[in-house]
Amino acid sequence: MPTESAMNGGVGTESYAKNSTYQRGIVETAKDIITEGINKNLDIEKLSSTSVNTFRIADFGCSTGPNTFVAMQTIVETAWKKFKTELSDSQVPDFQVFFNDRTSNDFNTLFASLPPERKYYAAGVPGSFHKRQFPKDSLHFAHSSCTLNWLSVMPQEILDNSSPAWNQGKIMYSGEKKEVLNAYALQYAKDLDSFFKARAQELVCGGLMALVVPTVPNPNHDLSSITFPSYDLLGTCLIELAERGRFDAAKVDSFNLPVYYTYPNELKAIIEKNQDFRIERIEVLNIPSKHHTNPDPKAYSLTQRAVFEGLLQEHFGSEFMDELFDLYTEKIEETAVLLNPKETSMVTFVLLKRVFRMT
Amino acid sequence: MPTESAMNGGVGTESYAKNSTYQRGIVETAKDIITEGINKNLDIEKLSSTSVNTFRIADFGCSTGPNTFVAMQTIVETAWKKFKTELSDSQVPDFQVFFNDRTSNDFNTLFASLPPERKYYAAGVPGSFHKRQFPKDSLHFAHSSCTLNWLSVMPQEILDNSSPAWNQGKIMYSGEKKEVLNAYALQYAKDLDSFFKARAQELVCGGLMALVVPTVPNPNHDLSSITFPSYDLLGTCLIELAERGRFDAAKVDSFNLPVYYTYPNELKAIIEKNQDFRIERIEVLNIPSKHHTNPDPKAYSLTQRAVFEGLLQEHFGSEFMDELFDLYTEKIEETAVLLNPKETSMVTFVLLKRVFRMT
Repeated sequence: MPTESAMNGGVGTESYAKNSTYQRGIVETAKDIITEGINKNLDIEKLSSTSVNTFRIADFGCSTGPNTFVAMQTIVETAWKKFKTELSDSQVPDFQVFFNDRTSNDFNTLFASLPPERKYYAAGVPGSFHKRQFPKDSLHFAHSSCTLNWLSVMPQEILDNSSPAWNQGKIMYSGEKKEVLNAYALQYAKDLDSFFKARAQELVCGGLMALVVPTVPNPNHDLSSITFPSYDLLGTCLIELAERGRFDAAKVDSFNLPVYYTYPNELKAIIEKNQDFRIERIEVLNIPSKHHTNPDPKAYSLTQRAVFEGLLQEHFGSEFMDELFDLYTEKIEETAVLLNPKETSMVTFVLLKRVFRMT
Repeated sequence: MPTESAMNGGVGTESYAKNSTYQRGIVETAKDIITEGINKNLDIEKLSSTSVNTFRIADFGCSTGPNTFVAMQTIVETAWKKFKTELSDSQVPDFQVFFNDRTSNDFNTLFASLPPERKYYAAGVPGSFHKRQFPKDSLHFAHSSCTLNWLSVMPQEILDNSSPAWNQGKIMYSGEKKEVLNAYALQYAKDLDSFFKARAQELVCGGLMALVVPTVPNPNHDLSSITFPSYDLLGTCLIELAERGRFDAAKVDSFNLPVYYTYPNELKAIIEKNQDFRIERIEVLNIPSKHHTNPDPKAYSLTQRAVFEGLLQEHFGSEFMDELFDLYTEKIEETAVLLNPKETSMVTFVLLKRVFRMT
């Protein structure tokens, strides 16, 4: 099952544009640390020696805005100031920002929402960030926020009823069933490796990459602590819809959320294995949790709907989406899942520099 | 009245994608002459001395495809072969193609239709080509086909009932009323000047620009020969709809098609005035006329609908479009306007090179 679905398009009630306040909080928190990272780690002198006419930035997994515009403005303004300070006016390059997301992303909405007063030339780039999307050595800065938890594809064994990793009746992994967790983790490592290999080709030497990655805390050798009660609850709703006769129960068995939440130590190990990038900074961001940002069941349900609806309706049919998310809102209220201290979402920030390799 | 409307989006019965066979014929005819132009005029040695890692091409006014893909493939393949022949393999650059059109263009359809086997990295760039859309010196090849007949804005005097250039009851200029023609021509010259000024900034020295421009024949001092019976017929349909009470007759007075068909001599004079570009080649293409490509009234009507509907429904309301184009199809049949030898559409090809200027 390739996971080709994008965030909900448009600007309506159920759109990602209107239901991404949690992600917006993350972008706002990351602003200062990105600014600091550029000021400390962007080597203007070295870049300008290779005669940079245009400073090129790409946001991988930009969705429809407005969060991507906030992040891009921070990067453009900070880098521009640094160029202005260290070089003569005529040497300050033009800025070009590339907004990347899957081909099914609503680029029409993104383009219509571009800030009119932007100080950069804008372009949209459709395609999976697990593959090459840019010419060799053409980018100076790569950014990605709240996207590196998506898998490119669901591992086959998860869907195979003869495999010990079959995830029957569930839509998400947890630490309880090691085989399922391992299948998710293995696919994640593969996908991240593809991501870093592609970016290593696209970024110039000395180029920076800022990643804001949804994670869980380091599990301290106890993987069984990894649980996602709010996703399990969505699974329960799907089963209830099957019981109501809306679709076959087997449809729930064959559906899994293609998201994996790594933890800082695992993320670090994957990056270090790659060798094309040096970690300049890695730290857990101090972000209000998803539950605190959306304490209202309806608002929380809408946030999940904006993110997962495309995927769910592709599998179950669009006619059940209102019923599903109404039920989900009810169940969140009943079970008080948002108050569950067991569910710990957090966000890890990583700043990387593309290093020179002889091989 | 800014003319912000784009070609009809999507891939349905009335879409530009399905009703642009005439424009496709032009692209096919232009293939050989573009190939010849690249082979003769693209100075690989000079470009590679400035260490080109990426060869960047932009199509201005790309619409939703598929015509743009045919043109871009021709340019990429020809330039790639030239690099391969004249340089070592490691020096052959990556190719990046930028698809530009107005922000209201249906980029989602464009992106979904991108050829999967393309040999270039693709990006979409939203915004008017009468302004800068790219960083300085960032393009090596600019292309534009069947777009440089669009005005950026309707000249005010055309809409002013106190002006001798008021175009009452008509939706298009003709040689009969000199004031209207002059207002259109003046706006056209201004727009083309903006286009060339912007492209001169964006193209590197030695960069090429291929333009396929809808034109009329040189008028031989007799401007009154300039008429557009098929557009006049569309105007007649609008007046009939006003008479049927669909909208006020004044609405027709305040609507004008923002298109102007230059002629080779005028086009040449505008380019030469700019001085940033040298004309490498200019010639009239041997294209079957719009009428011969669409001898069927229904097909001809659909071609016009795909191009002008956005503009018309913005002014008159979308509820009248079916009635308008049904009536148009009828009238084309009745008047046999497609057989009218007076209407002479033709297409002029221009190949330009960006030259170095001291000022």
